[in-house]
Amino acid sequence: METQQMNWSALKDEAVSFVKTAATRIVDVERESLHIDTKEDADDLVTDKDIEIQRLMTDQIRKFYPTHRIVGEEGDHDDVHNDDTITWIIDPIDGTTNFVHQSMNYCVSVGIYQRGIGYVGIVYDVKSEEWFTAVRGLGAYMNGKRLPKRASVPFEQAILGFNARWLVGKADESLKQGFQTIVRDVRAVRSYGSAALESAYVAAGRLDGYMSLRLSPWDFAAAKVLLEETGCECVKVDGSPISIEDQSTYLAAVPNVSQEFLSRLQ
Amino acid sequence: METQQMNWSALKDEAVSFVKTAATRIVDVERESLHIDTKEDADDLVTDKDIEIQRLMTDQIRKFYPTHRIVGEEGDHDDVHNDDTITWIIDPIDGTTNFVHQSMNYCVSVGIYQRGIGYVGIVYDVKSEEWFTAVRGLGAYMNGKRLPKRASVPFEQAILGFNARWLVGKADESLKQGFQTIVRDVRAVRSYGSAALESAYVAAGRLDGYMSLRLSPWDFAAAKVLLEETGCECVKVDGSPISIEDQSTYLAAVPNVSQEFLSRLQ
Repeated sequence: METQQMNWSALKDEAVSFVKTAATRIVDVERESLHIDTKEDADDLVTDKDIEIQRLMTDQIRKFYPTHRIVGEEGDHDDVHNDDTITWIIDPIDGTTNFVHQSMNYCVSVGIYQRGIGYVGIVYDVKSEEWFTAVRGLGAYMNGKRLPKRASVPFEQAILGFNARWLVGKADESLKQGFQTIVRDVRAVRSYGSAALESAYVAAGRLDGYMSLRLSPWDFAAAKVLLEETGCECVKVDGSPISIEDQSTYLAAVPNVSQEFLSRLQ
Repeated sequence: METQQMNWSALKDEAVSFVKTAATRIVDVERESLHIDTKEDADDLVTDKDIEIQRLMTDQIRKFYPTHRIVGEEGDHDDVHNDDTITWIIDPIDGTTNFVHQSMNYCVSVGIYQRGIGYVGIVYDVKSEEWFTAVRGLGAYMNGKRLPKRASVPFEQAILGFNARWLVGKADESLKQGFQTIVRDVRAVRSYGSAALESAYVAAGRLDGYMSLRLSPWDFAAAKVLLEETGCECVKVDGSPISIEDQSTYLAAVPNVSQEFLSRLQ
């Protein structure tokens, strides 16, 4: 598999099979966990299970791709470096609060990068069994169906993934004033509690934008490839380029929605 | 069917079959609508289709229950009166913005009332094929599985259905201050864009509360029965009882969450 010229499509297919294995284990974990008594217990459990699922994925990747780097939310992992080493950036369960308390709207997220460029993106919604996949230059798909490039959306018609918490948190007042204007100006706001999934929704046309003030590389690594392949933008909320090496603010949107969004924060 | 002593379970089963017919037509409408060019066209379409689906449901109800009253969002309908007449309160598509722009998170909602008391509640999520049903005194079910009575949830652990719009809208400042405190104090907020569905999520344990500043009877008629059968409260945001006769503010929540919520608005 690992030749001079990487076959990213083939790697995507293999990554999908690793995600399937992980998802099967996650569903088993859910079934086993029916006896949980309190939400506090549930929170302890999810940390354990996040680590277990990440280990499961890591073992598979290392077996077939021993030279690849693996970066993930849980447990021991490497830092991201934008070098030649092919790097898997994984979140075994994105949306852990949803996983524990709702058994829905959580996903497995896998992005595969080299020299800071995303080549493969996979977001899998375990409950709804929805696959969002993309290979750089070869388009994005939802459940095997090609996703069209996103067209412009009038800002007053846009639906944004925006959590009410951003209006009451520690962000500075001028930023919050801008957010208020945005929330008033768009058609509607929604919040599902999973950055990877909500970003995939932007690629798939269910949302026209999604923002967060605090994301880690594993939260958006997969989604970034999906967004790029559907003509969407992926920037920090100051408009500067986002880097897969750092935790940062995050705005994923149809380009004209991104511009309108950012113009209201100045 | 319509005897002196109404068999509400049987009426629920018949209502479910009416909802199935409506849902089948809704799915057809979605398929037919793939050619829609702009979101503005889509909005015109949904109004037409809402009316069509309501007509479909109304025809079925009138055929089998000619003496019953029918109240709905779309088209010609009766007012709600808390009298002896058995009253169907229906929303053919709750979450129309979601229906048009997301093809998910919309539902058919049917509540059946007499003398202001809800006897049957049905919320059907068409995309995910999830049924939430309840008969007064006989419990609530999700996809045929009995939903347990909701236990207390520490407020700081609660997940609320709360839309960011409530923080930036026309509500008075003291109310918005209270909302800010609530959003800060709970574990998380979510927003899915369908009052009936989010209320059903409270009954089913996916959310611990849901609020809106503006709901009509057809938005909450079905959900109110689900909530009562799972030990949840359903009040106005000033804490006063909600009436099925009027448009009003709305809070559906686990009782202790409702108390904590209301105490922060005083």
